[in-house]
Amino acid sequence: MKIVLTGAAGRLGGICREPLSKMCDELVSTDRVDSIDGLAANETYVKCDIGEREPVHALLEGADMVVHFGSIADEAPWGDILHSNILSAYNIWESAYQHGVKRIVFASSIHAVGMHKKHDFIGVDAAHRPDTYYGLAKCFTEDLASLYWDKRGLETVAMRIASASGKVCNSRALGSWLSDGDLVQLVQKSVTAPTTGFTIVYGVSNNDRAGLDNSGASALGYRPKDNAEEFAAEILANAPPQNNQDPEDMCHGGPFAVVPLGESGVEMIKARSVKT
Amino acid sequence: MKIVLTGAAGRLGGICREPLSKMCDELVSTDRVDSIDGLAANETYVKCDIGEREPVHALLEGADMVVHFGSIADEAPWGDILHSNILSAYNIWESAYQHGVKRIVFASSIHAVGMHKKHDFIGVDAAHRPDTYYGLAKCFTEDLASLYWDKRGLETVAMRIASASGKVCNSRALGSWLSDGDLVQLVQKSVTAPTTGFTIVYGVSNNDRAGLDNSGASALGYRPKDNAEEFAAEILANAPPQNNQDPEDMCHGGPFAVVPLGESGVEMIKARSVKT
Amino acid sequence: MKIVLTGAAGRLGGICREPLSKMCDELVSTDRVDSIDGLAANETYVKCDIGEREPVHALLEGADMVVHFGSIADEAPWGDILHSNILSAYNIWESAYQHGVKRIVFASSIHAVGMHKKHDFIGVDAAHRPDTYYGLAKCFTEDLASLYWDKRGLETVAMRIASASGKVCNSRALGSWLSDGDLVQLVQKSVTAPTTGFTIVYGVSNNDRAGLDNSGASALGYRPKDNAEEFAAEILANAPPQNNQDPEDMCHGGPFAVVPLGESGVEMIKARSVKT
Amino acid sequence: MKIVLTGAAGRLGGICREPLSKMCDELVSTDRVDSIDGLAANETYVKCDIGEREPVHALLEGADMVVHFGSIADEAPWGDILHSNILSAYNIWESAYQHGVKRIVFASSIHAVGMHKKHDFIGVDAAHRPDTYYGLAKCFTEDLASLYWDKRGLETVAMRIASASGKVCNSRALGSWLSDGDLVQLVQKSVTAPTTGFTIVYGVSNNDRAGLDNSGASALGYRPKDNAEEFAAEILANAPPQNNQDPEDMCHGGPFAVVPLGESGVEMIKARSVKT
Amino acid sequence: MKIVLTGAAGRLGGICREPLSKMCDELVSTDRVDSIDGLAANETYVKCDIGEREPVHALLEGADMVVHFGSIADEAPWGDILHSNILSAYNIWESAYQHGVKRIVFASSIHAVGMHKKHDFIGVDAAHRPDTYYGLAKCFTEDLASLYWDKRGLETVAMRIASASGKVCNSRALGSWLSDGDLVQLVQKSVTAPTTGFTIVYGVSNNDRAGLDNSGASALGYRPKDNAEEFAAEILANAPPQNNQDPEDMCHGGPFAVVPLGESGVEMIKARSVKT
Amino acid sequence: MKIVLTGAAGRLGGICREPLSKMCDELVSTDRVDSIDGLAANETYVKCDIGEREPVHALLEGADMVVHFGSIADEAPWGDILHSNILSAYNIWESAYQHGVKRIVFASSIHAVGMHKKHDFIGVDAAHRPDTYYGLAKCFTEDLASLYWDKRGLETVAMRIASASGKVCNSRALGSWLSDGDLVQLVQKSVTAPTTGFTIVYGVSNNDRAGLDNSGASALGYRPKDNAEEFAAEILANAPPQNNQDPEDMCHGGPFAVVPLGESGVEMIKARSVKT
Repeated sequence: MKIVLTGAAGRLGGICREPLSKMCDELVSTDRVDSIDGLAANETYVKCDIGEREPVHALLEGADMVVHFGSIADEAPWGDILHSNILSAYNIWESAYQHGVKRIVFASSIHAVGMHKKHDFIGVDAAHRPDTYYGLAKCFTEDLASLYWDKRGLETVAMRIASASGKVCNSRALGSWLSDGDLVQLVQKSVTAPTTGFTIVYGVSNNDRAGLDNSGASALGYRPKDNAEEFAAEILANAPPQNNQDPEDMCHGGPFAVVPLGESGVEMIKARSVKT
Repeated sequence: MKIVLTGAAGRLGGICREPLSKMCDELVSTDRVDSIDGLAANETYVKCDIGEREPVHALLEGADMVVHFGSIADEAPWGDILHSNILSAYNIWESAYQHGVKRIVFASSIHAVGMHKKHDFIGVDAAHRPDTYYGLAKCFTEDLASLYWDKRGLETVAMRIASASGKVCNSRALGSWLSDGDLVQLVQKSVTAPTTGFTIVYGVSNNDRAGLDNSGASALGYRPKDNAEEFAAEILANAPPQNNQDPEDMCHGGPFAVVPLGESGVEMIKARSVKT
Repeated sequence: MKIVLTGAAGRLGGICREPLSKMCDELVSTDRVDSIDGLAANETYVKCDIGEREPVHALLEGADMVVHFGSIADEAPWGDILHSNILSAYNIWESAYQHGVKRIVFASSIHAVGMHKKHDFIGVDAAHRPDTYYGLAKCFTEDLASLYWDKRGLETVAMRIASASGKVCNSRALGSWLSDGDLVQLVQKSVTAPTTGFTIVYGVSNNDRAGLDNSGASALGYRPKDNAEEFAAEILANAPPQNNQDPEDMCHGGPFAVVPLGESGVEMIKARSVKT
Repeated sequence: MKIVLTGAAGRLGGICREPLSKMCDELVSTDRVDSIDGLAANETYVKCDIGEREPVHALLEGADMVVHFGSIADEAPWGDILHSNILSAYNIWESAYQHGVKRIVFASSIHAVGMHKKHDFIGVDAAHRPDTYYGLAKCFTEDLASLYWDKRGLETVAMRIASASGKVCNSRALGSWLSDGDLVQLVQKSVTAPTTGFTIVYGVSNNDRAGLDNSGASALGYRPKDNAEEFAAEILANAPPQNNQDPEDMCHGGPFAVVPLGESGVEMIKARSVKT
Repeated sequence: MKIVLTGAAGRLGGICREPLSKMCDELVSTDRVDSIDGLAANETYVKCDIGEREPVHALLEGADMVVHFGSIADEAPWGDILHSNILSAYNIWESAYQHGVKRIVFASSIHAVGMHKKHDFIGVDAAHRPDTYYGLAKCFTEDLASLYWDKRGLETVAMRIASASGKVCNSRALGSWLSDGDLVQLVQKSVTAPTTGFTIVYGVSNNDRAGLDNSGASALGYRPKDNAEEFAAEILANAPPQNNQDPEDMCHGGPFAVVPLGESGVEMIKARSVKT
Repeated sequence: MKIVLTGAAGRLGGICREPLSKMCDELVSTDRVDSIDGLAANETYVKCDIGEREPVHALLEGADMVVHFGSIADEAPWGDILHSNILSAYNIWESAYQHGVKRIVFASSIHAVGMHKKHDFIGVDAAHRPDTYYGLAKCFTEDLASLYWDKRGLETVAMRIASASGKVCNSRALGSWLSDGDLVQLVQKSVTAPTTGFTIVYGVSNNDRAGLDNSGASALGYRPKDNAEEFAAEILANAPPQNNQDPEDMCHGGPFAVVPLGESGVEMIKARSVKT
């Protein structure tokens, strides 16, 4: 089995490289950087801008699965999102279809539904309510994947990742944290499931305060093990007070629910030193 | 307390004999064979074709509960299903009513709803969608039980058993397995619950990949302990590839979702050596 | 096009004969009586006990559609229901499948869901809750039809007829009445719809007090024209007081919700001179 | 932080005193009795009839949160319920609003929804169906809290407490038990949650037979640890038989579902020596 | 039949007097004023403050039904609402129960659910979300009525009246208008329905822009005839612009969704000359 | 008031020109052609490729509302859809926001949800299930509009137009037809509604066989007058037989549910002479 991993130089993609290399005969990792370190024996690296059609087509030749983390992982100006997150999605699904790929496992995001209220326990069938251009591109990719499944039988697992920041950094993450270990489990289950059709699943750990309902994706078998609650006392002791009238504190999207769209949103998130 | 157990010579009925014998003063086991081995001290065996009205009436005299596993446990020609699975149901519920039995605990089946998609996390209120004559007879029995509860106050627990094959035999069973231990627990909880009304519950273990939602039967207190996931690596390593367009791989009913109805279905299941 | 009509000698079947004769090239009417009057030019009559397998098989040869009203139209002893309402259903669906019939339009009944409360506005997806053996047989037939659609592509329209008694006879019928004209429209729409799959629809007129929700069957295009409300003043003026604790007055099944099952139920309904 | 605790002399309030004292700088405990024992270092006691407007206003001055257990904890004559459970609620929410209190955590009750059937797995959005004047007052308080949140931004956690009787006393409590430890956890999570808006949560332990669905309050992070099942064998061995036609045995409210309203209900509950 | 009408001197109660007088043998009208004009031949007037227990008890003696419009019909200070809208409800339901009244038809209000969004098409099962003390009292009365039905079999129809202001006065009323004629029909249907149990129904006309879903109360048979749309062109031409961020324009409660609670709310509504 | 109409040279845009000109002070019509005939007195025409950012920005200056029909109205190669249907959407919503436009009324399509089954009565909250690139672009635009409403307060009415082909051409259109008159009404109601937030509504006439549920958009006040049923007899008499296993005949998207994506899909639709 051959797997292609996009976004291999990013934090999340990087975490998945070794586990994926053990699950296949051949792992092709790709990203925009010139090279990455620590290649596994069965891993090769190909530099590729997935926003470009031809290189993606070449990249996916012979692949059985694609694990797709490659795209801007933050709010960004529209033009950048268009290139790296929207056009890249078309390039990947269309190439995958043409090459007979069986399934794409991709990093969607909580920001596809970020404007829902945090105290609404939303399921995997929650309506799209994006909070940013970033979230909008995830919505687009989910719909594209739905189309390729319904019309062409290409499977997708859309992992709506919540707060995959490594550590639990703030009180919002007490509910939304996805530990690195649970991320790896989620990717593994998504790859090894005999069938998935078009499945949406939240990428969130087994947190006491989780406000995301994965029961609709139960057949996938993802059963997270980590729980942000072990950090709760420390986090809450130092947390700034939350405002029950502020979308940042009341919506699943957190700070993305309040920042301006596009470039100025990026700056504001940086300035607030918020890590989502 | 006196319990009557039908299907006592079958695999599932057999598993329940000893636990049931410990829960009552008198256990009457019955099946079509001449005798069964290993009777408990308070257990007697009565040979009976439950498709016949009179013997069933005699059998249930004085009973407090009936645990009903007796019927053909596979797809079969219509005439056989009619006799052993449909007429038997009438015989048992009507006799139970006449004798003042409090509750019937019976082995319904996932095949009563087998045409639902596996990636739909169906609850205990899922509409009937049988996949075979076998499943159709389970639908009939559930409706009959609903009638006897609503009109006559006779309680029923309908256990929609999924894959109670002892071992985890194939990748479908990673989601649908019911271990022998969990089967026993389910029967125990069904018998000892102070009240049940007409309750439907899925007979499935605590599998990571379970696609059946028992939350609607939560008050029954069934909390399975076993998990097919411990066999996942081995099963998946040897599993044939699944086809995401094939009802066998995409429906809760598995192979029953594709085999012809009646006799030829039986043959096909045998020929494929599938154990569901 | 050739249509077979069962139950042609009954009141409802009789109403449909002429309209059906105009919708097809050949109409074969059947019932248990020796003959019926007033055959249309393209109509033939065949005497047939539909509880018998062979005659039904012969009857359906060459048919394109079956309109199935033939069965006992009241509560009856179990053995009678078994023969005329359950075995007949198997005979008809199996024969229809073997002969390549496209669709069966059949008279199901409100009594398949008669134990639901009248003030619950139940939809076409309401769970089965039969109130009598009669209703139980309708549940069985619906499930059989679901099976033949899912596994064999044979279409069914299950018309859950409420109070098709010609006139509005009592206060219950102010909500449940199905006028003769609306019955004919419903059968026509069911026959002419380009596709139906397995569709359930309530056979009820456009009554102000209708407690049955047909929105889920909207695509069928049944739009009833008659309204029992025009008889409300007269009916209510003479109606006996209703008891808000009595299932007869509070359940969709009306008197069937309280009568004993089987033979004694029949007698009680007669004795009360209730027409449902 | 300053917390005001009402009902501090009651059993449940008493359990919460020490844990609450550790979560704040200043704890003001109050009840109708003259004094209470064992004050923590940062705890003061104020005698107060919360049915009176002025004393409550004075009591809440400077408070950040109110934990409200103070009211009659049983069915009672209407006049008593009016004074102690309804007028007190107005006094507390209005005073809290005027003093800028951030949140009220209050003991609502299963009896706000006690007429729902026990075998219906009701969620936190279950419609009000009170079983007594006591339950009616809880409904009123929840609606009042909803109003103060929607119009004035005052947060509330309404803990619908089931059977918080310390020990598991009867078979109903196998499903409805709330252990003292889980009660404390629930109060702690309700106090420390960064935001809650208007949240309803069931106060029930992690019982195998729990018939109450807290998934809608998942973001609160309440994860009970205790399970009444460890007492099941003993309880069931000595339990009187239950009657599947009796609302006491079939409704979430248990005995409250059958006792007369008001004073005579109190007497009947006492006479039956039932502890709910 | 004897009917007692409360609030007979108010605009809505007044409209119902004549129609009610024709539906019964004896109509007892009551209100706080000394007398009312134009008594029908079978109508008597009794002055009564329904916030007082004893007079209400006397008033309802011998009654078969109560039509209850009597209470403050606007936001008001808490004490006034408590007396006239909450205590009065207890007085009426308790007296009705003691006198064996069959049913109470009462004017609940859209303000019991006024904080729901106008573009959410809410059904009769919408959760309580009151917008004022006035709305809160309606919630209380509905819950009280639910209790008296579940425990005591006393029926209620709770008519959640929207904008019953006679004329269509503003753009909100294009959706929420209840014409006088439709009000009368609604009361008639509520009185004559053979059974109602505890039924909630929206009092709204057949407006094109209606945002309230009465399908759940379909069995009551209320079918409004009037449509505010005939006034739309005129109303919209003169309407001030609406603000899509303003709860007044976005919530079902209209101006009640923004006014302060209690006395100051009354003043603000008057000052804005808004008629809801 | 100033309205900008895109797609003014298309059939649907053309139908709306005159009615829109009467609803505003100034109508700016635009399309890709050089000119259009029959300008109203207050109408000007501007040639514009809405896939280009700058011209759109200029076009929307001073506008109060945008009525957006301009985009490819059929399946097309991805690159064309990207330019004309996706980039144009960004251009319009972003420019509208920058210019303070109050609302955009736009032609979404049934093809955003075309893979749902026709016999499922889908509501306005149906999950996106596009059937083509064309449908995918409509999904994107709806999500973009949702984002601009949630984050920026720019209102949208997304009219999911079904079969707006002027005449009823085939049996599918018996359910999906949108008459020209009803289209105009829908646009009028969408423009004049005081508030809309982000509203989705199906553009379908009052057809007997309508399989689309607009109840969720009830507050908009769209009440279609035309009914395709008047053409049913003629259409059905000449319709080719439908195949109950064919997505074309069983899905809301009709032929779009089966054609290949992109260019070849266009050709196939043309070759079949299907007009959807």
